[in-house]
Amino acid sequence: MIIDCHGHYTTAPAAHTAWRDAQREAFEAGRAAPPYPTISDDEIRETVETSQLRLMAERGIDMTVFSPRASAMGHHIGDEGVSARWAQVSNDLVARVVQLFPAHFAGVCQLPQSPGVPIDRSVAELRRCVEELGFVGCNLNPDPSGGHWSAAPLTDRSWYPFYEAMVELDVPAMVHVSAVTNPNFHATGSHYLNADTTVFMQLLQADLFADFPDLRLVIPHGGGAVPYHWGRFRGLADMLERPAPQDALMRNVFFDTCVYHQPGIDLLFDVIDVDSILFGSEMVGAVRGVDPQTGHHFDDTRRYVDALDLAPDDRAKVFEGNARRVYPRLGSTAG
Amino acid sequence: MIIDCHGHYTTAPAAHTAWRDAQREAFEAGRAAPPYPTISDDEIRETVETSQLRLMAERGIDMTVFSPRASAMGHHIGDEGVSARWAQVSNDLVARVVQLFPAHFAGVCQLPQSPGVPIDRSVAELRRCVEELGFVGCNLNPDPSGGHWSAAPLTDRSWYPFYEAMVELDVPAMVHVSAVTNPNFHATGSHYLNADTTVFMQLLQADLFADFPDLRLVIPHGGGAVPYHWGRFRGLADMLERPAPQDALMRNVFFDTCVYHQPGIDLLFDVIDVDSILFGSEMVGAVRGVDPQTGHHFDDTRRYVDALDLAPDDRAKVFEGNARRVYPRLGSTAG
Repeated sequence: MIIDCHGHYTTAPAAHTAWRDAQREAFEAGRAAPPYPTISDDEIRETVETSQLRLMAERGIDMTVFSPRASAMGHHIGDEGVSARWAQVSNDLVARVVQLFPAHFAGVCQLPQSPGVPIDRSVAELRRCVEELGFVGCNLNPDPSGGHWSAAPLTDRSWYPFYEAMVELDVPAMVHVSAVTNPNFHATGSHYLNADTTVFMQLLQADLFADFPDLRLVIPHGGGAVPYHWGRFRGLADMLERPAPQDALMRNVFFDTCVYHQPGIDLLFDVIDVDSILFGSEMVGAVRGVDPQTGHHFDDTRRYVDALDLAPDDRAKVFEGNARRVYPRLGSTAG
Repeated sequence: MIIDCHGHYTTAPAAHTAWRDAQREAFEAGRAAPPYPTISDDEIRETVETSQLRLMAERGIDMTVFSPRASAMGHHIGDEGVSARWAQVSNDLVARVVQLFPAHFAGVCQLPQSPGVPIDRSVAELRRCVEELGFVGCNLNPDPSGGHWSAAPLTDRSWYPFYEAMVELDVPAMVHVSAVTNPNFHATGSHYLNADTTVFMQLLQADLFADFPDLRLVIPHGGGAVPYHWGRFRGLADMLERPAPQDALMRNVFFDTCVYHQPGIDLLFDVIDVDSILFGSEMVGAVRGVDPQTGHHFDDTRRYVDALDLAPDDRAKVFEGNARRVYPRLGSTAG
């Protein structure tokens, strides 16, 4: 069985996206948001069957850990109430996808984060999604300001109430930023990768996993720049008199395989222990085209992993076992 | 001959660093800065002979392209006058190192950038350093705010007056940020790498080199996250209907070899054309320890490049030829 740990509902029905625009306009105008539209099961089926499910079948992916579109989370937009409502309807929509295709999708929730709002205000939505909707994890945004990085580092104690809830519910978080408002950054071209690298370095500098030995964080996009600069991070740990990252971090931190060419995947598996790597593709996502060098989609990451010639046990870990360990609530819903 | 394109005067005499502290304190107190101290040739000799020159000899590096300490540029500190004076004394100090050891160092200047100050105010110092001090390049900070990214992207026309001067003087810039004031970021652990990735994506989105076909930019630290995610950047170019980065950028953009482990260097040379790679180590710099896995310094990057088994012509390009092409003013000063 092959589980993709990183999929977003990037093909959500137009009415959902249009409601978000209306919500935003209403907030800016000081009006109440319009009622959320009725979206039929058929519409949801169509958006998924023509894209994610079709590609999953083509690529031999059995199940996707599925969350609302990351770039659309837009935690910097509006206020706490705007984020709360948008998270709720986005998560409910993902829950409907999971209900329609329970063998193929497991839900991961967006949080109602908002700049300056304490993270414990996101615990209720996490709890609702896990306990009522059967979700298996969450996406945690280390920069709800949308590129201004006005929150404290993820290792700051202000985040701890949320980690306590995650541990209690036994769900991991994927550390995932959203859209960016600073024109220096491109969301999927630099902001996402920068956030991955930034958070890894925060974790290297602190003792978060000493305080939360059962906390699990997935750093997507192959860990940003980290595996390519693994020697730099090992050396910085040494310079800063911190324990080696392999020992101190890599039982709690996991990188996905959203690296869109063979040499990158080769490097990832060369330097990162196979126990810390989860199969992922972020399909349908940031990069949708076909690589002229291979004739296959850039984000068809299964091909790169298949080409590694992993031992059968290691292959099973990357494609399934590690995901079941990181997302234990998959156990009762998947496959 | 082996030329290291990336060295900073991280071992500058204590009096120089102390003056900077005094300058900063004076600015904050509204006083004039104290006079710059007298520093003897012997002091300068000692700081270099015991560190950079010793390590260069041990590693077989003949010449280093040498600039003021990057993390100490601190363009966000003080105002335009503070930055102007600090750039001047820092560049003069590097010029003295070059004068004392002209066979082993070539100068690269720090610019008097300051948040909100137009970049054309940095042209005079560039011109002074190139025409009077014999420098061969400059370090251009895409984020003089120190982590707030308040300037326009490097592809914005506001930067063009500086590029015009660079082209006229036939000098390249290394794109290099400095210290960071936001606690989310670690200067050498995330801010530097993020800046490298950020700027590459800016270049991919615009037509800077159509406007300046002779402009040359060195993106350090192995290009940040870019080579590891080369497929992502090729795919994003395709999605954004931009030309392929190899065609549109890599005649003007160069990555150094400041990647501190063998797998990273292997990947760099696997995906990036050898004509676009300059040997560099950033020694003595961000990572100073010995890798327990190899028994050698993390930043002894020559070992990784030597291990590649490059064809002799390619080896000569990476170690010397490309640097002479990117820094043509080395021709009259080096070796």
